[in-house]
Amino acid sequence: MNMQRAASFRGPPVVALCGGVGGAKLALGLERLIGADLTVIVNTGDDFEHLGLHVSPDIDTVVYTLGGLSDLERGWGRADESWNFMEALGALGGETWFRLGDRDLAMHVERSRALRSGISLTEFTVATARRLGIAASILPMSDDRVETMVITAEGALPFQRYFVGLQCAPVVKRLEFSNAERAAATSQVLAALRNPDLAAIIICPSNPYLSVDPILAVSDIRRALDEVTAPIIAVSPLIGGQAVKGPTAKIMAELGVPADSASIARHYRFIDGLIIDETDRAEAGKIDMPVRVTSTLMRSLGDRDRLAADCLEFASHLAAGAQRRTAT
Amino acid sequence: MNMQRAASFRGPPVVALCGGVGGAKLALGLERLIGADLTVIVNTGDDFEHLGLHVSPDIDTVVYTLGGLSDLERGWGRADESWNFMEALGALGGETWFRLGDRDLAMHVERSRALRSGISLTEFTVATARRLGIAASILPMSDDRVETMVITAEGALPFQRYFVGLQCAPVVKRLEFSNAERAAATSQVLAALRNPDLAAIIICPSNPYLSVDPILAVSDIRRALDEVTAPIIAVSPLIGGQAVKGPTAKIMAELGVPADSASIARHYRFIDGLIIDETDRAEAGKIDMPVRVTSTLMRSLGDRDRLAADCLEFASHLAAGAQRRTAT
Repeated sequence: MNMQRAASFRGPPVVALCGGVGGAKLALGLERLIGADLTVIVNTGDDFEHLGLHVSPDIDTVVYTLGGLSDLERGWGRADESWNFMEALGALGGETWFRLGDRDLAMHVERSRALRSGISLTEFTVATARRLGIAASILPMSDDRVETMVITAEGALPFQRYFVGLQCAPVVKRLEFSNAERAAATSQVLAALRNPDLAAIIICPSNPYLSVDPILAVSDIRRALDEVTAPIIAVSPLIGGQAVKGPTAKIMAELGVPADSASIARHYRFIDGLIIDETDRAEAGKIDMPVRVTSTLMRSLGDRDRLAADCLEFASHLAAGAQRRTAT
Repeated sequence: MNMQRAASFRGPPVVALCGGVGGAKLALGLERLIGADLTVIVNTGDDFEHLGLHVSPDIDTVVYTLGGLSDLERGWGRADESWNFMEALGALGGETWFRLGDRDLAMHVERSRALRSGISLTEFTVATARRLGIAASILPMSDDRVETMVITAEGALPFQRYFVGLQCAPVVKRLEFSNAERAAATSQVLAALRNPDLAAIIICPSNPYLSVDPILAVSDIRRALDEVTAPIIAVSPLIGGQAVKGPTAKIMAELGVPADSASIARHYRFIDGLIIDETDRAEAGKIDMPVRVTSTLMRSLGDRDRLAADCLEFASHLAAGAQRRTAT
């Protein structure tokens, strides 16, 4: 959280599109670099009602990560977490397949209370981020429900049933995002995307199918992206044909798509440039758009900072090139 | 929990009317003596919606006490409790004046989920008690909302605001039980009270004004008590003019009622006998109904068992006397 810088100097705004863990790492790097100039638009296709509570897994991952509360070892949820609620719930015969830590639960209870009282998911998220001292704006992609459905060989599965309940085992045939066409982007999301000073839009290395596509499925957001003049870049979530975490490569195989950077570039065909890992340097020539080769693996905080800087520099480079083309 | 006895032998059924901590102690003693022959009808006037969850403090105290889960030191809530939810909620700006432990929270979340899905409070309570291995039937006084309002010198206060929020400090002018006249007793409560084999109805040493009167305010229950032929006895919650715990004596003073056993007898004017503590032996002569003098202080488990046995013996004695009177 670079709040001092954010307060003292505002640079050109940057938007990041982000899912859960992998994406949040880059969002943290960006926030440390540009603070309040960053807006993170987060996938809510994984949101679901559980135990009567509104759970927003990706928003929480981003909020916990940028708020310095995330568990870096486990990869999800809060650090210094306890599980006494879950244990007691099991003893009462409640559902325990989706694990909610005692501290994490506060977020779901408080958010559910807020939503029932008429506060929007955006308002709640913005207020919570502010309270946790996060300089960046964290925005749900929509305040309307969009539900990621995983159409598998075993039938249509709600996201969490596929992802947590069945540990991504079923073979994916396609993804559907219920209500995405009708869901409205919020005024905050549209304002961020339509900001004429925008320096870049960065698609974080989240799962393209499960985490980024739901955002792109919101028609308001897709249209806004079509009209953006700032460079749109993506960071490939693949390194050597594998995701650092999660089922990206498995899903690509199941969809009959080669698990390589060229496929990511084709998937995001509207972007202006792709960042790929050094491991995949040889693939650069097969990609029909500007490519930046760097290390995309984010182990340390320094890795996050460096990749964030690479993203901004690459976008700036693409913008300069576009201006030169316009000028000639 | 005397489940073996309960399974092998059924004696005459007994009903206890009960509020929170003090009442639950006697209910435990009764359950240890007669197991499944005991039905505890519990005050729900303290129930309230908090953080979007349905909290039933007295039911939970009885369930935790009879289920062997209660914290004997603190006097409320669960043993081996942690408070990480509460801490995290405070950091998010949530309400923390009413403390919910991490394990306790499982009950509120699961109950709220059940109620929203159309399961009644009675069904949920009965199922939970069964799951926790409790032989006795624990029944909410009603499945309809009855709300205890404390009319104080500072205005009308919902029960928890008065009891927990303001620590019983405001001067009580009177009590109101919203909706009690319209609230229906459940078929289970009425069946227990109308059981022709009933051996006794025991009013536990709970606060008469805050914990027992809401039960008596349900008109179905009051009518059923009028028709009961089994002896109705009460255990005075006062010892030497003071309650073991809670504001009984303070409220009596504020209402202009002497804090003695005779006042308790007048308050419960429909009962057939009153059990008072040895300390108050001198008051026995001033009480216009049969009185049993014994030790009503329940420190140890043995104390609970002994007082429970005294209650049953006293009721049996009163029933025999009534039969003799009928025969002559």
